[in-house]
Amino acid sequence: MPKYCIGVDFGTLSARALVVEVGTGRELGSAVMNYPHAVMDEQLPDGTKLKPDWALQHPQDYLDCLARTVPEAIRLSGIDAADVVGVGIDFTACTMIAVDKDGVPLCFHDEYKSNPHAYIKLWKHHAAQDEANKLNEIAGERGEEWLRRYGGKISSEWMFPKIWQVLDEAPDIYDAADRFMEAADWVIMQLTGREARNSCTAGYKAIWHKRDGYPSKEFFGALDPRLTNVVDEKLSRDIYPIGSKAGEITFEAAKLTGLKPGTAVAVANVDAHVSLPPAGLTEAGKMLMIMGTSTCHIMLGSEEHIVPGMCGVVEDGVIPGLMGYEAGQSCVGDHFNWFVDSCVPIDYATEAAKRNVDLHRFLTEKAETLKPGESGLLALDWWNGNRSVLVDVDLTGMMLGMTLTTKPEEMYRALIEATAYGTRIIIDTFEKNGVNIDQLFACGGISKKNPFVMQVYADVLNREIRIARSLQTPALGSAMFGAVAAGGEKGGYDSIVDAAREMGGVDELYYRPNPANVKVYEKLYREYVILHDYFGRGGNDVMKRLKDIKEEQRS
Amino acid sequence: MPKYCIGVDFGTLSARALVVEVGTGRELGSAVMNYPHAVMDEQLPDGTKLKPDWALQHPQDYLDCLARTVPEAIRLSGIDAADVVGVGIDFTACTMIAVDKDGVPLCFHDEYKSNPHAYIKLWKHHAAQDEANKLNEIAGERGEEWLRRYGGKISSEWMFPKIWQVLDEAPDIYDAADRFMEAADWVIMQLTGREARNSCTAGYKAIWHKRDGYPSKEFFGALDPRLTNVVDEKLSRDIYPIGSKAGEITFEAAKLTGLKPGTAVAVANVDAHVSLPPAGLTEAGKMLMIMGTSTCHIMLGSEEHIVPGMCGVVEDGVIPGLMGYEAGQSCVGDHFNWFVDSCVPIDYATEAAKRNVDLHRFLTEKAETLKPGESGLLALDWWNGNRSVLVDVDLTGMMLGMTLTTKPEEMYRALIEATAYGTRIIIDTFEKNGVNIDQLFACGGISKKNPFVMQVYADVLNREIRIARSLQTPALGSAMFGAVAAGGEKGGYDSIVDAAREMGGVDELYYRPNPANVKVYEKLYREYVILHDYFGRGGNDVMKRLKDIKEEQRS
Repeated sequence: MPKYCIGVDFGTLSARALVVEVGTGRELGSAVMNYPHAVMDEQLPDGTKLKPDWALQHPQDYLDCLARTVPEAIRLSGIDAADVVGVGIDFTACTMIAVDKDGVPLCFHDEYKSNPHAYIKLWKHHAAQDEANKLNEIAGERGEEWLRRYGGKISSEWMFPKIWQVLDEAPDIYDAADRFMEAADWVIMQLTGREARNSCTAGYKAIWHKRDGYPSKEFFGALDPRLTNVVDEKLSRDIYPIGSKAGEITFEAAKLTGLKPGTAVAVANVDAHVSLPPAGLTEAGKMLMIMGTSTCHIMLGSEEHIVPGMCGVVEDGVIPGLMGYEAGQSCVGDHFNWFVDSCVPIDYATEAAKRNVDLHRFLTEKAETLKPGESGLLALDWWNGNRSVLVDVDLTGMMLGMTLTTKPEEMYRALIEATAYGTRIIIDTFEKNGVNIDQLFACGGISKKNPFVMQVYADVLNREIRIARSLQTPALGSAMFGAVAAGGEKGGYDSIVDAAREMGGVDELYYRPNPANVKVYEKLYREYVILHDYFGRGGNDVMKRLKDIKEEQRS
Repeated sequence: MPKYCIGVDFGTLSARALVVEVGTGRELGSAVMNYPHAVMDEQLPDGTKLKPDWALQHPQDYLDCLARTVPEAIRLSGIDAADVVGVGIDFTACTMIAVDKDGVPLCFHDEYKSNPHAYIKLWKHHAAQDEANKLNEIAGERGEEWLRRYGGKISSEWMFPKIWQVLDEAPDIYDAADRFMEAADWVIMQLTGREARNSCTAGYKAIWHKRDGYPSKEFFGALDPRLTNVVDEKLSRDIYPIGSKAGEITFEAAKLTGLKPGTAVAVANVDAHVSLPPAGLTEAGKMLMIMGTSTCHIMLGSEEHIVPGMCGVVEDGVIPGLMGYEAGQSCVGDHFNWFVDSCVPIDYATEAAKRNVDLHRFLTEKAETLKPGESGLLALDWWNGNRSVLVDVDLTGMMLGMTLTTKPEEMYRALIEATAYGTRIIIDTFEKNGVNIDQLFACGGISKKNPFVMQVYADVLNREIRIARSLQTPALGSAMFGAVAAGGEKGGYDSIVDAAREMGGVDELYYRPNPANVKVYEKLYREYVILHDYFGRGGNDVMKRLKDIKEEQRS
C-alpha cells in the first residue's frame, strides 16, 4: 500500500502544496494559491500608510492558503488523506511576527490592527537598515566572534534588526509581544499546537549556534539596555535540528487542512535550504545553486570554516550532522529581466512578437551564436548590490567594452556571463578558505529553462553542473522532511539521507565544460576579478560616492 | 547693387551649394545632391570587392554635384550669376586621390578602373592602420619633433599612411601617380585649371608646417626607401594660406557650374575649420565646437603650444596670422543614435510613436526632468575610441551605477553628460598647456536642435556657450572665403576678419551655467577624470585586452 507525504512551499507571493509518493518521489498533484494580501508595501488593510522600504504580510493568508491548497492537492492526486504519513513546510526567511502568549499574532487584536509593527515583516522588509548598521558597528567594535560566521555582517533582513526596529519605533508592540517568531515556526505551531523552532532559521537568521547559543546579554545590552534580556524575554531557546518531528496534526489543523489528526509534521525549513535532499544531496562537498531572480548557494561541509563574505554557516542547518554554508548573489534573473524591460529595441520586440517567442528566448537564440569574448564586453553583476562575497548593498552595475556596433544580445550575454563570474568568485573564496566543492548542482527556474545560461556557467566555472530532477524542489524537499518526521515504521524514513537516496535525484543530462570556451573564460574571468576588486574592495569607491550624490539630489 | 558669393560644402554623402548676400550674410538659396556612388565600402562600380575598413568615393560625383547644385542654388536665389563675386568650397579631409600628370584621377583611366587604389580614399577609409602604426613607431623612435604638434600620433585617416598603403598594396598605382592630392584641392583645380593646395589640409593632414615644411627625406626613407623622395615626387610644395585666392573660374568650369568665367575662387578648406568665420570668430582665445555625430573643436591662438592629445596645430590653418588648434571627440551624436537604435524598449517606442515625436525628443523630454547626479550613473564616452586627448582608437565605452530601477532616459542622459565631460577634459588640457579659451561657441546640428544637450554642456563646462546663427556654417564659411578671394574692390572683402564681422554672428539667446548644477557636475567630473585616467592612461588596460580577445575570437 503506497504512502504519501505533503510539502507546502510558502513563497513571497503564493503557497504551493505538493503530494508526493514516498519511495518513488513521484509528484502526484499540486495546488497553488496567491496570498490575498500579497506583499503589503504601501498600506495596511485598513488604509494605514507604510513608509518606504517596508514589506509586510498578513498571517491569515498563510492559513487560508493551507486550507485551500492542501485539500486541493490531495483531491487532484486522487489519494486518501489517511495515507499521508507526514507533512513539511518551507518558507521565506527571515519572515517574522510578534505574537501574544497564546501564539496569536498581534495584528489579530483589534487594538493593534492599525499598527504596521503588529504584522508579518517579510524577508524583504528593508526598513531596519539603521538598526542593522548599528548592530554591525557595535558587534565589530566588541570583536564578537560570531560575526565571522556571517561573513562579517548581519543583514537588515534578519531577526534582531527587525526586533530592534519594533523596539525603536513601536515600544508598545515590543512590550505586548510575548514572543517574536519566524512565520515558518508560527505556521508549524498552527499545525501542531506547539512551538518547535527550527535550527535553520535560528542559525542563519537569528545568530544562534548549536554550541555557543545566542550572542551574550552584554552584547544585546550594548545595543540597547532594553534588549539585554531579549532572548529570554522574547525568543524561544527550544530549537530543533532540521529533520526533526515538530509534532502531529491537531484536530483543529485537521479541520483546516483535510489531513488526519496525528499525521507527523516536520520542523519548518527555508525554501533554499530544503532543496538539497530533492537533488539527492546529503553529503559534504556538494554545492547547490538555487537559481531564480537571485541565486542562493548552499554547500555541505564536514567542518566549520570561516569564509569571508558568506551569508552564514550553521551546524544541522541543512542536513543533520553537517555544516550548511550559505552564500548568495542578490541579482541573477533580475538582471536579465531588467535588460528585457529596459534595453531591448523595438525591432527586436517586433520580430520576437512575430515569431511568438518571448524576449528572453529571442535574445538567448541570438546570444548563443556568439563565441565567448567575441563581443568585447565585460560586466559587473551588481545591479542589486553584491551579497557574496563583498556583502555590500551600495555597489552598483557596470559594463564596459561597448562600441557603436554593440548589439543587445551581446549585452544580454555579458550580463549572463557576469553572474557566472560572480558565482566563480564565491566558489573560489570557499575553496581558498577550506570548504571544498567536489560537485556542483543547480535547481530553480533558470536551471530548468535555460540551457544556454547553464552552459555558460559550466564553461566559466570549468565544472560539470547537474540539475535537480524536480521542477518544485522546495515543495518536494518539504514533503521529504514530512516523510522523515513520520519515521520508517510509519511508512516514512528514519533519516533525510534515506529519503534523499530514494526520492531525490538529478536529470540524466548534465552540463559539461567546453574546453575551448573554458580557455577564453579563464582570461575574461581574470579581467572580471581585477574590476571586481578595484570597484568592490576600495580601489575606487566611485559607486558609493555616486550613490551619495544620488541620494542628496533626490532628497 | 548687391553682390553675392557661393559656398559649396562637400560632406560625406552629399554636396550643398549655398548662395549668400555679401555684406548681410543673408542666405538666399541652397541646393543639395547626394553623391551617386555614395560611400563605396563593399565594391567598386564594376563589382570589384573591397576589403574591410575601406571607404572610397568617385571623383565624378563631385563634378556632377557641382553641375547640379550650383546652378540650382543660383536659380532658387533669383540672382544673376554675373553678380557672384567669388566661390569657395570646403571638404571632408583627408580625402585623397592619385592623379596623372594632367590632373586626371587614375580611376578615369580604363586600365586602372578595377583597382581600388585608383579611387578617392575617403577620410574614414581605415585600411591604412598598419602603415599608421609603423609610421608612429618610427617617428617616435627617431624623436621626430613634428609628432608633438599632432598630439603624439598621426592618424591612419591622414595623407601619408594612405599614400604608404598605395605603395604597399599597389606599387603600379604609386608609380603611375604623378601626384597625390586632397580631393578638395582637386576640385579647386577643376574650377581654376591649376593646383593651389590649401594650408589647412596640408597642415592638419599632411604633416606640413609653415616654417619647417614636411618631415625630412631621412624620415620618409626610414619608413620605406622608396618613400625617400615622396614629397618631391608625389606632392606639391606650392601651398597657400587659408583666405588666398586660388584662381578664377575657367571657361570649362563656367560651362559646368553656370558661373561666369573669371569669378574668383578661394583655396579649399575643411568643413570644420571653415565654420569659425560664420560664427564671427577670427580672434585668439575663441573655441568653436562643431557638434554632430562627432565633435570637432577648433581653437584660435596667437602662439604655438604643444598640447598633448590635440589633433594638430597649424599656423594659418584656420585664420591667416593665427594658430589654429584642432581637437576632437570621435563619437558624440553617434552615442545617442546608438542608444536610440539599440537600447530603447518597446513601451517607450510605442508611446513616442503615439505622440508622434522622435525617440531623441522623447528621451530628452524625460531626461531633462532629472537632476544632475540623480541617476547615479556615470559613463565614459568611448563607444568609438577616444580622439582627444588620449588618441586611442582601442578604448571602448563604459557605464556604471546601474540598478534594477535604472531607466533608459537615465542612461541616455549619462551618455550626454559623458560627452560633456570629454569636452571638459579637452578644454582643461588646452588651458593647462598655455592655450586659453576665453569664449566658447558651438555650431552644427546638435547645437541648434537640442537645447537640453547644450545646457548640460554649459553646466558641466561651467561656461557660457554661444551658438552660430547659421544652420549651414560650412557652406556659409566657404561662401565668405569666396568673397575674400574676390577682394574688396570687386565687391567682396579684403580679409576674412572683415567678412566675419559683417556676415558672421551668433544667436541672441545663449546658454548660461546653472550654479546649482555646476556644483554637482564638479563632483561628477572629478569621478569621470579618475575613471578616464584609470582606463585610458594605463591604470587598467582591460579595454585593449578585451579587444584582443575579441579579435582572436572573430578571426
